[in-house]
Amino acid sequence: MTFEVLILGSNSAIPTLKRHPSSQLVLFDQMPYLIDCGEGTQLQLRRYKQKFQKIRQIFISHLHGDHYYGLPGLITSMHLLGREKPLSLFGPKGIKEILDVNFKHSRTKLRYPLEIIELEEEQRYIYEDERIKVRTLLLEHRVPTFGYVFEEQKRELRVNKVAIEKYHLSLKEILDVKAGKPVFRNETQIDQSELTLEEQPLRSYAYCSDTGFKPDLAQSIGNVNLLYHEATFMEDMKKRASETLHSTAKQAAEIAKLSGAEKLIIGHFSTRYEELDGLLDEARRVFENTEIAAEGESFRI
Amino acid sequence: MTFEVLILGSNSAIPTLKRHPSSQLVLFDQMPYLIDCGEGTQLQLRRYKQKFQKIRQIFISHLHGDHYYGLPGLITSMHLLGREKPLSLFGPKGIKEILDVNFKHSRTKLRYPLEIIELEEEQRYIYEDERIKVRTLLLEHRVPTFGYVFEEQKRELRVNKVAIEKYHLSLKEILDVKAGKPVFRNETQIDQSELTLEEQPLRSYAYCSDTGFKPDLAQSIGNVNLLYHEATFMEDMKKRASETLHSTAKQAAEIAKLSGAEKLIIGHFSTRYEELDGLLDEARRVFENTEIAAEGESFRI
Repeated sequence: MTFEVLILGSNSAIPTLKRHPSSQLVLFDQMPYLIDCGEGTQLQLRRYKQKFQKIRQIFISHLHGDHYYGLPGLITSMHLLGREKPLSLFGPKGIKEILDVNFKHSRTKLRYPLEIIELEEEQRYIYEDERIKVRTLLLEHRVPTFGYVFEEQKRELRVNKVAIEKYHLSLKEILDVKAGKPVFRNETQIDQSELTLEEQPLRSYAYCSDTGFKPDLAQSIGNVNLLYHEATFMEDMKKRASETLHSTAKQAAEIAKLSGAEKLIIGHFSTRYEELDGLLDEARRVFENTEIAAEGESFRI
Repeated sequence: MTFEVLILGSNSAIPTLKRHPSSQLVLFDQMPYLIDCGEGTQLQLRRYKQKFQKIRQIFISHLHGDHYYGLPGLITSMHLLGREKPLSLFGPKGIKEILDVNFKHSRTKLRYPLEIIELEEEQRYIYEDERIKVRTLLLEHRVPTFGYVFEEQKRELRVNKVAIEKYHLSLKEILDVKAGKPVFRNETQIDQSELTLEEQPLRSYAYCSDTGFKPDLAQSIGNVNLLYHEATFMEDMKKRASETLHSTAKQAAEIAKLSGAEKLIIGHFSTRYEELDGLLDEARRVFENTEIAAEGESFRI
């Protein structure tokens, strides 16, 4: 099953024609989960050919506009396009009031059930389905801000090719093996360990935007496969980063190193950086396996 | 002095990659006045190279999202970019509450004075400066909705070329004539009527979106030079237009004809129309001088 992250926008604060504000789509086995929803996210979803009616869960990190100003528009478009499927929205306290006030004045009564879950300020599991579970991280910012960790629930079993040949497994039997169901020969169940390869470790993805440098955070993140960490500034702006509770590229890399992440992607860039190479170089000097979370890029886990 | 209207978006309801929701910039002598502010307006302003910090007045027609979802983002970007100049915002009751709730949760204290003028539901002058004055129209929609008429305050005097040659007017004297100041020869004031051409009539522009067909409206609009009137549907969808309090292209043209407008531009198109030729043809059969309010197009009055 594929597990990937599509970047829809990764600029901080001010949208530009080249860089949109924060939004990402986590795609697990092609099911989309949206994280953050800056202004223009519904158009970014269209641009990258993602069907937004397939989204069932939205996770908002915090109530600064560059992370949610696209939310009323996306929710309204889902409504106008005839959605009936429910939608769950996770985010900080206040998100319900913001939507309610908008819909009160537009006299909008949504055609579909919108469940809004306002989060307590604690680190805990907040969501699960058969594919993934999601837990929160407490970030260090000027308003209550959540990180999110997406964890795979269970890995699909891999069928051992040797067993396929040895037992002449039919297609149905192969699917049974993958689903963990028993397969028989001469009324005897074939041992599961002979049919399948060793289980692979469960995959995970952590999203951390926006946050001041907080070494403790690394432990809460854990050794995820992929970490998105904000890198609003470069190290020469460390003081400004600290004052505004943002991080530098170097600090993002330090968190990646401390947490034991396999790979780091950095984003939430200040508009002052027209070119992003400097940020990337700075992070790579501390944590080599780093990439820019450029919009339109997809990161496979 | 130039008086023109730049279309930033003219789609209804749902933004698409090709057509943005409602927003227009009225440019009078290069001073920009913004009307409506659908999601993405700040990017449309960038796309068409308009400096949004120059805007001093914003006029919102009504509180459906496709006419104001870009407003919190624009106001926030003005703030983040260090604006100090005041901004006046005109719109229906409720617009203040919407902005207040957003800024409360983001803990934003704007660096510049934002004056919000919530309008009474009556037709009257609401704004004037040395260039223009603006009056409201009451439109027929599902929530309180205002049209806006922009009227030129006074026309620049045009200097008669014959007089320039006859009196060998200097550049300073020409500017004096334009400003209505006296010019002398041999201590005698030259007669103003000899120096200037006949005064031209004052120009005006009316914006009407969204509205059901309301023949009375024509009289309130008056014989403007340019009329923007919504044309969400074509005549075969007349019933749906009437139910949703929108207009057809034919109805828009009828209002233009009744009002005595010189020219009509139609917009606020339903997303169902990929091509707009049908709407244009329908309107032109009733009112020939009609154009599509295509985004990026500028209409000079």
